[in-house]
Amino acid sequence: MKCKVCKADAVVSLPSHNTAFCKEHFTKFYLKLVSEGIRKRSLLERDDKVLVALSGGKDSLGLMYALSELGYDVTGLHIDLGIFESSQKARAVVEDFCRDKGYPLKVVELEKEGVPMPLIKKHIRRPICSICGKFKRHYFNKVALEDGYTALATGHNLDDEVARLFANTLRWDQAYLSDQGPVLPAENGFAKKVKPLFRVSEFESANFSFLMGIPYHHLPCPYSGGASFTGHKLLWRDLELRSPGSKRAFYKGFLDRGQPAFAAIAQDEKSNEVKPCIECGCPTSAVTCNVCRLKEQLRQSIEESGK
Amino acid sequence: MKCKVCKADAVVSLPSHNTAFCKEHFTKFYLKLVSEGIRKRSLLERDDKVLVALSGGKDSLGLMYALSELGYDVTGLHIDLGIFESSQKARAVVEDFCRDKGYPLKVVELEKEGVPMPLIKKHIRRPICSICGKFKRHYFNKVALEDGYTALATGHNLDDEVARLFANTLRWDQAYLSDQGPVLPAENGFAKKVKPLFRVSEFESANFSFLMGIPYHHLPCPYSGGASFTGHKLLWRDLELRSPGSKRAFYKGFLDRGQPAFAAIAQDEKSNEVKPCIECGCPTSAVTCNVCRLKEQLRQSIEESGK
Repeated sequence: MKCKVCKADAVVSLPSHNTAFCKEHFTKFYLKLVSEGIRKRSLLERDDKVLVALSGGKDSLGLMYALSELGYDVTGLHIDLGIFESSQKARAVVEDFCRDKGYPLKVVELEKEGVPMPLIKKHIRRPICSICGKFKRHYFNKVALEDGYTALATGHNLDDEVARLFANTLRWDQAYLSDQGPVLPAENGFAKKVKPLFRVSEFESANFSFLMGIPYHHLPCPYSGGASFTGHKLLWRDLELRSPGSKRAFYKGFLDRGQPAFAAIAQDEKSNEVKPCIECGCPTSAVTCNVCRLKEQLRQSIEESGK
Repeated sequence: MKCKVCKADAVVSLPSHNTAFCKEHFTKFYLKLVSEGIRKRSLLERDDKVLVALSGGKDSLGLMYALSELGYDVTGLHIDLGIFESSQKARAVVEDFCRDKGYPLKVVELEKEGVPMPLIKKHIRRPICSICGKFKRHYFNKVALEDGYTALATGHNLDDEVARLFANTLRWDQAYLSDQGPVLPAENGFAKKVKPLFRVSEFESANFSFLMGIPYHHLPCPYSGGASFTGHKLLWRDLELRSPGSKRAFYKGFLDRGQPAFAAIAQDEKSNEVKPCIECGCPTSAVTCNVCRLKEQLRQSIEESGK
């Protein structure tokens, strides 16, 4: 197969775009996917100070690299979850990557915050992935706001977004369907959140990081017991094979024609006010935020187990 | 496995309802699915005069039988498509069924109307299934209105509805999503249309007709080249296997929380007026209706081929 642009040997074939590229033109194609997505859906302004959440996986590192190449002011943020060897490896990958590329990096250590995931898992009997997500979002938002970043970027790719949208659509979850998209504007004490890889498939993202020589962390979390959405991702793999471009069409169609319908009926219902948490100041619709409540639960559980 | 109600040996197992039934209690269960659906979504009034579209398949014959058992005033309507042996067999099945059960039956013969499907297929180069659907809907509506029926019932089951809803959702087709449901009220010269089997799965429908001893026609149309929606139906079979009840939850969720969102934004746009076709009087947004235009195309093509 030949590169669509220069007719050199192609290294990546993309049936969903009905094309193939050499390394150079795939890189350009990838960066264009990202920059056009940012422009078309108004994700970032040129003067945004962007905090990029870096897990150490292919998506987040590729995103950091792409945003930097596109000229954005980027700083990495890694949350060290404190899950033994797994977290050490992920952190080392992120630190090495940022050092090599000269990117500024911030690290939040949940161990130092008193809430490493192993301790939470031991004391709080609720699905750990969901709690871990809450803590990550909490610290992403906190760092972004406290340190003056105007946007928080995460590496969710098209496959992530489609799997999530599909799950929300199967349930016709009005609240999620009215909100889901590649940009959530800053409001109520939350920083603006953007997903600049929303047009990039998992396959394209993996190829980009591989071709750019980014050494990413690819072991699953020891607590996850298999990736989330696996069933739906397989279903979409089959749909995409039968009809290349299905994922993109589904997600784009949603943004153009689905989300607006749900956003219109949701406006009336968005009255539950958000105030600062009395403990930490982060926005919450309750008196204390989710994370502060979890911390309190943890404190009590530790106290009781010590008796 | 035992019947959930009477503990006799079960003849039908229904994972999606987490239950199993003997013949007697499955029949009751099926009739309750139908009658509750009719009541909950306001499909029919007690005094409706119902015209039931009878193709001769398991769904339409089962529907006729169920509506009659539930005490509705029903008349069958069969459209003889004129497709050689296939149509003769289907018609014989319908006629025998209605004679045996004592149901009134009307038959429209497309041959007599000058538009048998083989002639159309020969002269009009467009997908025959789509044209056939237009003709069937045209005559269903025409007979219902001219003969004073207040509702037109079709045998679309849950699997049909889910496959169609899924296709419309993948495209986020606002017009279809604002309209799709088990009832379309009478308006603009169209009779009320209802789908009383919208809560009955294909499997349940097949079991009902089998257990009631209804001898249905089960050969695919020789023109169809395989059923429509096959890919999506397979996908949903897998989803349902992984998570029984998914189909029902998806369709019910749509009716409760999806359709209203699209209906709300569609209201502004429903301004394209419907007037009677100047040829046949049937409602159309053009000057002559779809079917009259196709008839004219056919007439011209026959004339030209005769030259």
